[in-house]
Amino acid sequence: MSNPASPVKNPLADLVPEIDAALNAALAPQEGCPPELNEAMRYSLMSPGKRLRPALVLMAAEACGGERSEAIAAAVAIEMVHAYSLIHDDLPAMDDDDLRRGRPTCHKQFDEATAILAGDALLTAAFETLATGIPQPERAVRACEVLAKSAGRSGMVGGQTDDLLAENRNERHNLAWLEAIHRRKTGALFTCSLQLGAISVGAQESQIASLTDYARDLGLAFQIVDDLLDWEGDGDEMGKQSGKDAARGKLTFPGFIGVDASRSKASELVTAAKQHAELFRGTGQRLSQLADYVLQRSR
Amino acid sequence: MSNPASPVKNPLADLVPEIDAALNAALAPQEGCPPELNEAMRYSLMSPGKRLRPALVLMAAEACGGERSEAIAAAVAIEMVHAYSLIHDDLPAMDDDDLRRGRPTCHKQFDEATAILAGDALLTAAFETLATGIPQPERAVRACEVLAKSAGRSGMVGGQTDDLLAENRNERHNLAWLEAIHRRKTGALFTCSLQLGAISVGAQESQIASLTDYARDLGLAFQIVDDLLDWEGDGDEMGKQSGKDAARGKLTFPGFIGVDASRSKASELVTAAKQHAELFRGTGQRLSQLADYVLQRSR
Repeated sequence: MSNPASPVKNPLADLVPEIDAALNAALAPQEGCPPELNEAMRYSLMSPGKRLRPALVLMAAEACGGERSEAIAAAVAIEMVHAYSLIHDDLPAMDDDDLRRGRPTCHKQFDEATAILAGDALLTAAFETLATGIPQPERAVRACEVLAKSAGRSGMVGGQTDDLLAENRNERHNLAWLEAIHRRKTGALFTCSLQLGAISVGAQESQIASLTDYARDLGLAFQIVDDLLDWEGDGDEMGKQSGKDAARGKLTFPGFIGVDASRSKASELVTAAKQHAELFRGTGQRLSQLADYVLQRSR
Repeated sequence: MSNPASPVKNPLADLVPEIDAALNAALAPQEGCPPELNEAMRYSLMSPGKRLRPALVLMAAEACGGERSEAIAAAVAIEMVHAYSLIHDDLPAMDDDDLRRGRPTCHKQFDEATAILAGDALLTAAFETLATGIPQPERAVRACEVLAKSAGRSGMVGGQTDDLLAENRNERHNLAWLEAIHRRKTGALFTCSLQLGAISVGAQESQIASLTDYARDLGLAFQIVDDLLDWEGDGDEMGKQSGKDAARGKLTFPGFIGVDASRSKASELVTAAKQHAELFRGTGQRLSQLADYVLQRSR
């Protein structure tokens, strides 16, 4: 049994340089693209971050026995979608945030029109990256399908819509409803990341299914830990205004079931995620480490 | 020689019912998609319109000897991208329009957050439609690539960005610069429409090249005619506040080179477009009729 007090090594750290190099290359200047637009896209895409989603893509590719280089296009694509979603979520008409990880949000650094357009362009670039960066047409088209379904009206955008609607209406909901929001708002891109990694290396369907199970459990655990960090006001860790979610009545796990029950639930989910990762034996080791690392953030 | 006074039959009219049926089916309710979001997407996608871009997709498919049914997914996808671009362009931070074709714009009918999300979801759905609706993986992935490049940072979004930047800065530009804006802002989706139709039916590269030439000329002619209609304040035809482009100092062809020279230029471009359409002989007849029809709108 691992000692909960001993820090788990960050399994993302050694993947970040190769991810950042690929992100940087993906937004090289291009004829026809206004420099102001490219700068706003780069500002958001290259902002310091954990690169969790692209790392999940690469880890899934490795778990399925492939090379990380085969999945780097999908890793870039998922970070583009993540960056676009943050830009649009931060807009005044949406969450109206001025800071993200201690830096001005895109519409504060540039302006609102540029932020909307940079988000649009990043979302579009994600599909271009999949279509041009995965050489096998069958894999590329499936990757486009999975990304679109995960990010679209019944996935991430749907979850964000329901979240905003609930906030505006001050509706009372139950835990199942909160989980359904998170399953789409955060979980959909988690699941998509792992599936894209697998699809990029031509994985078997059974491998994709195990990664989907892993993603579902880890994604919810990650969200609960995020809620806990916000609830406890750990401003340094979050890099945004602490407790802001709670202050504006946003639904969170600790708000619903309390801090202790939230911690227990995150722990159970991490244990379940690790069981799915263990199906891959040695190649799933990073996924297993990542699950421990996610839980550790909440301590 | 055709008599300029005799009205040209609208070659789009008999395609509209099959396009509208496909658009309607594409946004059927879906589990996980909030009804409010779906309603906003439908409001914009199904708003009355000429369906010019999807019709171009179907006409290109026919010109290349294919069936319209093979290209209907691409027709839906391009109209989704067009609808998303109108929603985002109309936002207060962008062109700030309250009306489009006599109806409230999406953010007036719903709210700003819903409009941003509906646009995002339509853009995403366009790629899902291509990936799932074109059965041959090679064609589907190429369609995704072409759509992304046409709609993205060096295409439509890039053109919109430059247009807004010029407006904000009150910059003086030359005609070549105005054409470069339109080539991306309007022309990119025109070209994409014809290319997608051709790709959907597995056309030859030489056919795609001819359609690209046709699109370039017709797209610019269409934009000049649009500018002329706005300039002359034909409110009924445009269904939006007449002369508004001119009032806010937006760059237009008649503003640059005058009404007569704009009319001549549109006429020359239509003649050139028809020559490209004639390379397809009988199957290109609709494309030829369309060119005449576009010019007729300006008379």
